[in-house]
Amino acid sequence: MKIVKTIESVRTVVEAARRSGKTIGFVPTMGALHIGHISLIQAAAKECDFVVVSIFVNPTQFGAGEDLEKYPRTLQQDLKLCDKAGVDVVFTPENETMYPGQNLTWVNVEKLTDRLCGQFRPGHFRAVATICNKLFNIVQPDVAYFGQKDAQQAAVIKQIVADLNMPLQVVVCPTVREENGLAVSSRNRYLTDQQKKDAASIYQALVKAQQLVDAGVLESAHIIAAMRTILQQGSSIQVEYISVVDAQTLQPIDTIVSQALIAIAVRIGPARLIDNIIVQAPGNSV
Amino acid sequence: MKIVKTIESVRTVVEAARRSGKTIGFVPTMGALHIGHISLIQAAAKECDFVVVSIFVNPTQFGAGEDLEKYPRTLQQDLKLCDKAGVDVVFTPENETMYPGQNLTWVNVEKLTDRLCGQFRPGHFRAVATICNKLFNIVQPDVAYFGQKDAQQAAVIKQIVADLNMPLQVVVCPTVREENGLAVSSRNRYLTDQQKKDAASIYQALVKAQQLVDAGVLESAHIIAAMRTILQQGSSIQVEYISVVDAQTLQPIDTIVSQALIAIAVRIGPARLIDNIIVQAPGNSV
Repeated sequence: MKIVKTIESVRTVVEAARRSGKTIGFVPTMGALHIGHISLIQAAAKECDFVVVSIFVNPTQFGAGEDLEKYPRTLQQDLKLCDKAGVDVVFTPENETMYPGQNLTWVNVEKLTDRLCGQFRPGHFRAVATICNKLFNIVQPDVAYFGQKDAQQAAVIKQIVADLNMPLQVVVCPTVREENGLAVSSRNRYLTDQQKKDAASIYQALVKAQQLVDAGVLESAHIIAAMRTILQQGSSIQVEYISVVDAQTLQPIDTIVSQALIAIAVRIGPARLIDNIIVQAPGNSV
Repeated sequence: MKIVKTIESVRTVVEAARRSGKTIGFVPTMGALHIGHISLIQAAAKECDFVVVSIFVNPTQFGAGEDLEKYPRTLQQDLKLCDKAGVDVVFTPENETMYPGQNLTWVNVEKLTDRLCGQFRPGHFRAVATICNKLFNIVQPDVAYFGQKDAQQAAVIKQIVADLNMPLQVVVCPTVREENGLAVSSRNRYLTDQQKKDAASIYQALVKAQQLVDAGVLESAHIIAAMRTILQQGSSIQVEYISVVDAQTLQPIDTIVSQALIAIAVRIGPARLIDNIIVQAPGNSV
């Protein structure tokens, strides 16, 4: 496994693989790798001939007062996990490599970024769209892999790739969960044991939503109220939002007609955690 | 020379050229080709093995009340000129090909787009940056060619390519002028003979600015006043702006210290015309 820090070197290595006829799979990460990331790497390794992982804690996507400083950095462990998972190249640029001068260009996605996390993290998705655009242009993969846990991020990335005709495919992989249902996240490290127990109610609320929809309860207000009751059982949980939105447009819907994304964001102690499921109104198959 | 209308077909043709080891030069245009465009194509043909020209009147870069409807469309003549100039592929997509659904993604460049034409054409450079980003991702050229007449556009394109790490080089070619000094432009077709004569004063004003700078007159206000006097001699001319700006940042400067861009926009009858020169304070070589 190669570890490279410069744009030129990652381009050289990937170009050599491409010339030898290999397809390139790419997993962009902020490091602090966990089994969620590994599942993306495994999907890339299964479907592509050559796997590139980037590890870069992108400063522009953290807002004022967010956790940029304390975001976990575990590079040595990350590299071991990548090597074990069959990664060919890890790209670990410095800030100065990714932002050598004043960055004036931003990739904005309208509408998809107004709600959900976009409402609580102004500028976040603009920064995510921009850094992914940069990384795609640097690595030039055939396929890039993202997790469903970050549903809004995945929707934004799919949109920029489609709207800007970027020559790659985006694959969104299922959320990986801990034993109690909690979606794995680098930010779970911030939780105490008790907070982790409380956090299980996020998944329980999503399961409840699924059960209600399966039973034909399709009014968003009803579903959200039932979810809120469950979340409030975890005493350390502060709900940021519970939303039922169209799975494609991410715009709020009052009644689930076909497919919907049900998404949650909460604060538990020092962590902000998100999770979601996609549900289908009974009798409406995809 | 091939003429293609779909994204798949232009990608296939370019990919075949690239695989055979050819370098790809790209000249994006809105058609109504003139000797300015031809000079870009000639530069591409000289420096690259394979030349792609796109002809697409991009609707999103025209503001309300601008000349989208009457913008000259001369496809048959354009194709002849391309063929003669040694173009390998002309890409002539329909609107529906470039914007198949609702376009939600915009590439914004801060600061560079605030002033000059950006001030008078809100949203214009956002649309130009976005369509060029799309075209670059479709054609994937090694080098793209733009004209110095559209100085702000060239600066914006260079900035997105640098900031987004797009894998191509941007070359800016000198402005081509008619015999009386008027910069050639597709919009010169809108002018009557008298208006064309009046329009010569745009270049005369720029020559005056150059003379003043060469003589050590470096205060912008002084230069602009002298230019305005010349422009006012053309009775059909309405000045939109005369600006002295830093050649890199495009921010206004009071006194020319090293390199400056002196830019003009005027309205003459139904046409809005722009032109510029880059000047160098005496004793400051680039």
